[in-house]
Order: sequence, then C-alpha cells, then structure tokens
Amino acid sequence: MAVTRWVEGLASAGVAAGIKPSGDLDLGLLVAHHPVTWAGTFTRNAAAAECVNWNRDALGRRMRALVVNSGNANACTGTAGRNTVEATAAAAAKQIGCGVDEVLVCSTGPIGVPLDARVIERALPAAASSLGDMVADFSRSILTTDTFPKVSTASRGGASVTGVAKGAAMIAPNMATMLAFIGTDANVPAESLQAAVDWAVDRSFNRLCLDGCESTNDSVLVLATGAVPEPEPEELRAALLDVCSQLALKMARDAEGATKLVRVRIEGASTDAHAAELGRAVARSDLWRTAAHGADPNWGRVLAAMGALDRQLDVDTTSVAIGDEVMFAKGEPTGLLAAAAAEMSGDEFTVSVVLDQGDATAEILTADLSEEYVTLNAEVTT
Amino acid sequence: MAVTRWVEGLASAGVAAGIKPSGDLDLGLLVAHHPVTWAGTFTRNAAAAECVNWNRDALGRRMRALVVNSGNANACTGTAGRNTVEATAAAAAKQIGCGVDEVLVCSTGPIGVPLDARVIERALPAAASSLGDMVADFSRSILTTDTFPKVSTASRGGASVTGVAKGAAMIAPNMATMLAFIGTDANVPAESLQAAVDWAVDRSFNRLCLDGCESTNDSVLVLATGAVPEPEPEELRAALLDVCSQLALKMARDAEGATKLVRVRIEGASTDAHAAELGRAVARSDLWRTAAHGADPNWGRVLAAMGALDRQLDVDTTSVAIGDEVMFAKGEPTGLLAAAAAEMSGDEFTVSVVLDQGDATAEILTADLSEEYVTLNAEVTT
Repeated sequence: MAVTRWVEGLASAGVAAGIKPSGDLDLGLLVAHHPVTWAGTFTRNAAAAECVNWNRDALGRRMRALVVNSGNANACTGTAGRNTVEATAAAAAKQIGCGVDEVLVCSTGPIGVPLDARVIERALPAAASSLGDMVADFSRSILTTDTFPKVSTASRGGASVTGVAKGAAMIAPNMATMLAFIGTDANVPAESLQAAVDWAVDRSFNRLCLDGCESTNDSVLVLATGAVPEPEPEELRAALLDVCSQLALKMARDAEGATKLVRVRIEGASTDAHAAELGRAVARSDLWRTAAHGADPNWGRVLAAMGALDRQLDVDTTSVAIGDEVMFAKGEPTGLLAAAAAEMSGDEFTVSVVLDQGDATAEILTADLSEEYVTLNAEVTT
Repeated sequence: MAVTRWVEGLASAGVAAGIKPSGDLDLGLLVAHHPVTWAGTFTRNAAAAECVNWNRDALGRRMRALVVNSGNANACTGTAGRNTVEATAAAAAKQIGCGVDEVLVCSTGPIGVPLDARVIERALPAAASSLGDMVADFSRSILTTDTFPKVSTASRGGASVTGVAKGAAMIAPNMATMLAFIGTDANVPAESLQAAVDWAVDRSFNRLCLDGCESTNDSVLVLATGAVPEPEPEELRAALLDVCSQLALKMARDAEGATKLVRVRIEGASTDAHAAELGRAVARSDLWRTAAHGADPNWGRVLAAMGALDRQLDVDTTSVAIGDEVMFAKGEPTGLLAAAAAEMSGDEFTVSVVLDQGDATAEILTADLSEEYVTLNAEVTT
C-alpha cells in the first residue's frame, strides 16, 4: 500500500487540519493536472449532506480537484453547512488555480456538527504544496474509525485504475456506496464512465452490508484522466469492479468492532437482484450477526431473516450450509452443529443458501456484530 | 401480577417438561371450559413455524385448549416438526376430552432444533391436573430470555380482558405480533373479534420494534368465552388495545440487554402508517440504538435513519427533539447537546420528530442496543 501511486495525471496530499481532535490527518486533496471526465454514485438518503448535492450538481462538468475532510460529515448542518461547502470549494480553487465549479467536496464523520470552513481554508495551502503521486497520506486523511487505509489497483486493456476508500460503519449501500475515490488513466466519455461505475458499484460496494444504516455522505467518485486510449468497455468495467471489490472487502474486514468476515452466498435465486436482496436481509440481521460473533451455527436466524423479506420463500426447497457443512437440507435440519461451529471459529466463513427458484447468485459481504461495535458507537460520537 | 386471574371460563397451568435445560417452567396449558370463539394474528415470515400454520388453519373453528412450550421454537424442523405439532394437539385433546382440531399449539425458543413430542406428552397430565384460574405459572412457562412475566388486564363496557405475553428479542412485528395470549369474557362473533384484534395489534405490538428481526413464531391469540354480553365494538377495541399496549410496553422494558426504554414519536406525518414506518426506521437503527445506550444525543442518526426510508423527506422542514430539548429546528442544528445527554441518562426517554406533512402521529417503542444484547445472542442459542 505504502508505494501505491495514482494513475498518470493525478496527485494528492493529506494533512492534519485540526478537525479530528486526535490530530491525525483529516484533510485530503486530490488534483488532476488538467480538467478531467468524472462519474459518481451517491447516497439516496433524503438527509444527504450538502456536499453530496454539490457534487451531484457537478455531474457532466469536467473537474480539477476534490477536497475531502474526515472528522465531520457536515450533514444536517443547515445554512452554515451549505456555506462551508462553497467556501471549501472556493479556497481549493484559489490554491489550484481553477474555477470553483471545478472542485468536488466530500466529508465524513459525525452528523450534525457545525464544520468551520476556516479550518479547511487554513490547511489547504499546506496540502496544495505537498501534492505528490503517492496515495498514502490521502488514503489516511479520509479515515474515521477505520483501523487501516484502504487502497487497491487494477489494470485491463492498457488502462490502470487506482482507488482509495474509507468504511467502518453506517454501511448499507443502496444504489449508492461508500466514500471511495478512484482514478483511471483511461480516455473515456463521461456517459460510458458513469455506466461502468454504476455497473461495478452495484456488484461490489452495493454487496456490502454491515450495520444496515445508510449513510448521509456515501459517494464513489471516479476521475478519468484520459492519458491512455479508451479500453474496451468490458475491460474498463472489469478493472473498476476489481478495484471496487477489493475496497469493499477491505471495508468488511475493517468493520467497526468486527472479529470476522462473513460471506453470505445466495444461489438458485430467480434473479441476481433478488439473490442480493436475500443476502442483504441475512447480512443486516442483528441476531445472525451476533451468532456469527459467538461462532454459534444458529442457521435458523438465516432462514428467519430471509423469510421476513420474501413472503413466498419456500423453506421446503431451501438448503443452508455453513462452510461445507449442510445445516438444513430442503426443509429438514441435519444436526451437524459441531462441524459448523468449527467453520465459524476462524476470522472468516461463508454461509450459503441454495434456493430452487432459478440460477441467479449473489454474494454479500458482512461482518459479525460484537460488543466492541456497541461500545464504539455508544461511547464515541462517530 | 401474582394475583391476576383469567376471565371467567378460562383456566391455565404451567409446568416444567424438561425442554429448558434450566429446569424452569416451559410448558403452558390454557383451557376453555366450553368451545370458545377466538381470533389471532400471526407472523408473516415465510419460514413460519409449523404450529403457526396449524393455528392459522384453525381460524373460524371454536377452540377448547392451547398448548405452548418455551425453550424450542419448533421452526424449520421439517417433517418431524409437523408431526410434533399434531402429536402435541392429540395429547392435549386426550387430556381435556376434546377434538384434536380444538387445540391450538404455540412454541418459542431456538429455531431449527428438533422438539420431541414425547417430552410434551409426558408433561401434559400434570399440567391438566393443576389447571386453575391464576395466570402466574402459565405466564412464567412461556418466557425465554425474558426477565419477568408479562401480564395485563383491562375492562370496558362490562367485558374484561386478561393477557399474557413473552418478548425479549427477535422483535419486529410486521402485520403480526409477538407471542401473546389474551382472554376476554365478551360474547362476540369471531369476525368482530378478529377485527378488534387486528385494530388493537396494529396500534400496540406492531409499534414495538427492538432488533428488527422478525420472528418465525409470532402470534397473538385471543379467546372470547362469551360469559358477558357483547360490549360496544369501540369498548372491546379499547380494552384490547389497553392490554396489548401494556404488554408491548413490558416487552420493551424487558428487551434483551436493554438498559432504557426509548419512545420514538413522529408527529406531523402525512398518514398514521407513514408515521409508524418512520418511527420503526429510527427504532431499528443500530447506530441510533447504540447512541441511546451511551446517552449520546447523536440526533443525526435519527435523520439518517428516516432519510434512508423516505427519499422525499424534507430535512429543512423537519425538527428533532430529545425530551424537551430541540436538537434540530427545521433544518438547523441548535447545539443543545448537554441538556439532551442528561435527558438520555435515565432509564427512559423520548425522541420526537416533527414533520411538516400533515397531522398524523405514531409512537414506536424500542430500547437501547447494549454490549449485553450481543453477549446474550452470541453466547447462547436463543
């Protein structure tokens, strides 16, 4: 990770502006050497942060810079919050030498806490003067309760993709995603890029469900510098999916308080979308996630979670396995609990559900629900 | 509670059949002296326990007895589970001297564990020989992780209503309810009784949401002995609502691991149903419930939970208060955090949301999410 570089044409920096009381890096700046095509997906939450609206309005325009702060979501902050977004974009534009409308703004952290734009304005010159092609400082500056930076890369058809993300909690993407920033050197029209991003996000971040709480600030932004010729659409999609999937996996592994990664596989569903919905229903079940924490093969909670979502689910043609151990075979329990408990005792396991509806499949990533998650979110305003 | 009696015409018993490893009471028997009218609401979970299907099929017939066991949900138990329900009904019918099709069967406890009917058959004679009009033993025999029995009574228009319930977890009623057994001495046709039960359940148990996990066994069964003349419909409804609301409140207070009761009030909504949906969205937010646990007035999580449900929510006309302290006034944060934290520090508080959509209101009951909930559900198969 430490040596990962942005694609040609992008540079970044990460500095400590003083937004996080800890003094950690909390302000990231990502700059394109010339105006670039970009695409994005955003939270659908009606309480979306003002910066989400700002970025959504910028779709279709070429961009020069992105400012992102951690330690404060600047969401539900009213008029003052809107002013802070504009002041942040204006300050970055001045540093970079571009238009205010060429700057994207993202924030992550506690909701409803006023964010003073002057703190960002004061720190931006240091960020601008330390721009470089390494992702390290930028990837650290966007973290909240994450315990490690999340970076991944891929290349296909001559084009490279580099992405960074933050995760940890309030993770239930719904036609939107997490905070992730991705660069590619591909020369690709905005509409094609948007289609590729939508496709990749739906198969990666949107298949991650930690606590079922949808964020006010979720965004995935992809900048395409155009330094290399346009790859085949399927190659760009594959590279984006590769990067997005790696980042989603890192988020699941770094979920707040989590001790294990849980893959929920749904097979034999009528459609991919229904398979994903069933998987998410299992992934957001507090009772199943606590059972996972205790390595208790309580597969009944898996069926209960699916049966609450799909009123037509036919239990008598449904099977459930934990690892390789079939717990419930087409309506009948098998009683192989000890072997399943052993499967669950490590830092990763898979629970598989096989339906008799069709041949669609989906895998949803989640993590166990631990006492530590409760403590983290009860004692700290995150 | 100890002296609460069933209405005239009903008798009950509770014995230890040996289903619970603890040796606590785990088999309840409720008997009507003559065939009685009844009504019920049931879980809509597609993985519903076989006993739920058994009882649903009995709607419209008059009933003589109800057998309920705790310590095992007999859900997702396949053919053996179906046989156990029939054997249980047959054994009770023999003890009571009635038809097999005059016996209702309920179960609660872990899902997917085989339940041996012989254990119940062996214990039923002792239950039948200890029938009496006190609710005490019966109310204890249906408990799982509950810490106290839940009993309530009401009377209106000359009719009395007595109800008992169990709660604790896997509580997210959805057009169905919890395990609750209610008797009334009113003489009321089955259709009227069903309408009254649906009405009361929608306004009581269906406004309780603890962990968002819908049970496979939820049922509310109401037996009407007909000993007193039919009350006015609104009086029967009021008495049923009174009993159901009291039981729902007891469930919320006894939620697994909970340290405080949280009332989520939604005002100014377009419809009662939408108000209730918004309230449930807040009530099932893990992040809001952990904030409640830590007495952290993190009202942004309330807005985020509602905004994820209602994409059209207008934050700029929405206000949020904790107790009497307004945290967010029509789009602007107020910053009164210390007073709100004090409001949250006791064993009960209210979070109120005022919308500008209409004049519908709803109050949803929930509880905080604690480390103890995780521990309980990670370490014990419940």
